[in-house]
Amino acid sequence: MIYDLIIIGGGPAGITAGIYAARQRLKALLIAKGLSNQISKKSVLIENYPGFPEISSIELLQKFQEHLEKFVKKGYIEAKQDTVIEVELIKEKNIFLVKTTKNQKFQAKAVIVATGADPRPLEVPGEKEFIGKGVSYCVTCDAAFFKDKTVVVIGGGDAGFEAAIALAKWAKEIYILEAGEEVKADKINQEEAKKARKIEIITNAILKEIKGDNFVNSISYFDRKENKEKNLKVDGIFVEIGTQPATAFVKGLVEFNERDEIKVDPFTGETSMSGIFAAGDADNVPYKQIVIAAGEGAKAAISSAKYIKKLNTKY
Amino acid sequence: MIYDLIIIGGGPAGITAGIYAARQRLKALLIAKGLSNQISKKSVLIENYPGFPEISSIELLQKFQEHLEKFVKKGYIEAKQDTVIEVELIKEKNIFLVKTTKNQKFQAKAVIVATGADPRPLEVPGEKEFIGKGVSYCVTCDAAFFKDKTVVVIGGGDAGFEAAIALAKWAKEIYILEAGEEVKADKINQEEAKKARKIEIITNAILKEIKGDNFVNSISYFDRKENKEKNLKVDGIFVEIGTQPATAFVKGLVEFNERDEIKVDPFTGETSMSGIFAAGDADNVPYKQIVIAAGEGAKAAISSAKYIKKLNTKY
Repeated sequence: MIYDLIIIGGGPAGITAGIYAARQRLKALLIAKGLSNQISKKSVLIENYPGFPEISSIELLQKFQEHLEKFVKKGYIEAKQDTVIEVELIKEKNIFLVKTTKNQKFQAKAVIVATGADPRPLEVPGEKEFIGKGVSYCVTCDAAFFKDKTVVVIGGGDAGFEAAIALAKWAKEIYILEAGEEVKADKINQEEAKKARKIEIITNAILKEIKGDNFVNSISYFDRKENKEKNLKVDGIFVEIGTQPATAFVKGLVEFNERDEIKVDPFTGETSMSGIFAAGDADNVPYKQIVIAAGEGAKAAISSAKYIKKLNTKY
Repeated sequence: MIYDLIIIGGGPAGITAGIYAARQRLKALLIAKGLSNQISKKSVLIENYPGFPEISSIELLQKFQEHLEKFVKKGYIEAKQDTVIEVELIKEKNIFLVKTTKNQKFQAKAVIVATGADPRPLEVPGEKEFIGKGVSYCVTCDAAFFKDKTVVVIGGGDAGFEAAIALAKWAKEIYILEAGEEVKADKINQEEAKKARKIEIITNAILKEIKGDNFVNSISYFDRKENKEKNLKVDGIFVEIGTQPATAFVKGLVEFNERDEIKVDPFTGETSMSGIFAAGDADNVPYKQIVIAAGEGAKAAISSAKYIKKLNTKY
């Protein structure tokens, strides 16, 4: 069996592509790990997805999933929980072979890559050693463990500030460590952090090491202004220094930029490989936002429908 | 007073830009005619805006407006009901002057054009004469007038099919006239139309004239296959042949494509004029969809915030 389209990824971009594929009556399969990497783990308050003035990220993703589910139930699209490890072009047939960790193989005329991005690791000594022992990549999962404790959030962007604001409900004292001269979070997040009255921002600070015994007890960082190394006693570290696109499984098949994001034509979602489309945080559209990812997912699905139609008229 | 940003348009793109501008704490003003051109007048069922499996277009736009209203109430953005007639660059100050029909003038460092598109007229004899006397551009507004009557929808795209499906609740008999060899509506709409059992599709038919006395009673069209003119007795005509972007007020200021759509960099929403951004159906992003327009609105607002920040650090 050859699908028209396989969509890889179950976040805002993948689900929107699925909704559009179903409406185009493509023979489509959506493969996702389960809940989206991108917005499921951190239950942050979303105030900028139009139509929902205030909604938790988990609830929003559930609404997306229910929306897709409607089409799955009608038989207009299939969905499988699995992880794709490779996509291969079968040249003579002009189709793609999609391989998964469950040892499944699927064939499709077109593929949409919407796998989002994973948290970027710190890559400092102590990080791996103390994962689950004070080092966390997920505020929602772990914030409650740090009731009345001192924690540091690494990263002064929106994600870092949102993590710190969420932590303020639990922790006694919160630091935000930012390597640059100034934080990059938007004004609203900076104001919220100020209001919390227990968030302290340290700029020009480059994390050097995570230390502890059985559990984290401090970090050291290099103060670029004072030009010396400093210590900070903390019970926990939350990593919020951005993401790396989950694109390894199509390396060599489509062109990447220097950050391993898939290069797309942002009018259409087309990649350098005819028949492969990309959308959402896995691609090189610069702003990583839910509504933008959803829009790009719609574009990729419409473009893939056009591509498949053209292909079919050729035969 | 000089605003940071003026957003022109109150549809999905403009409202999303407004939400993002408010969150960036820009001193922003949104100017809109009232309800969006694009999705307000036709209350069609929307099934492809992620998060709402089924919602009427009017209800969805209301949800968008309530979302923006939350920020208006908090004083994070201003909103005015007015129509912009011209945008002018004041070169020496590097700011824009925005003029409205209410004779108001506003100044801003940056402008987002999100004015959408208006229905494209037929431009055949009888059209203007019979507006409101059988010729309509708005199914929701006028469908009920055609209970048990015969109507024709001009245009075999999605909009035409959706209009015909909506009319099926009222009219006795519905024709869809399509100039091309085949209709362009997506499969789901074609299936729905078939199910209604009273929608007949006429392809290769180029509308020539609308005829009647006090009220429309027939149309004539050229049958491209049989190479002759034909008549069709109808009581009403619904025009669904697409849209023309509402961009006349920035003609000469920013580059257009051949369809009068504003040319944008689809990564960022930037136009050919530094400080002017565009989003939604007014621009040249090819697929006209609510979720895509919303995504482009977010891009334009984030880009304009960056632009304003850069401008401010220059002074």
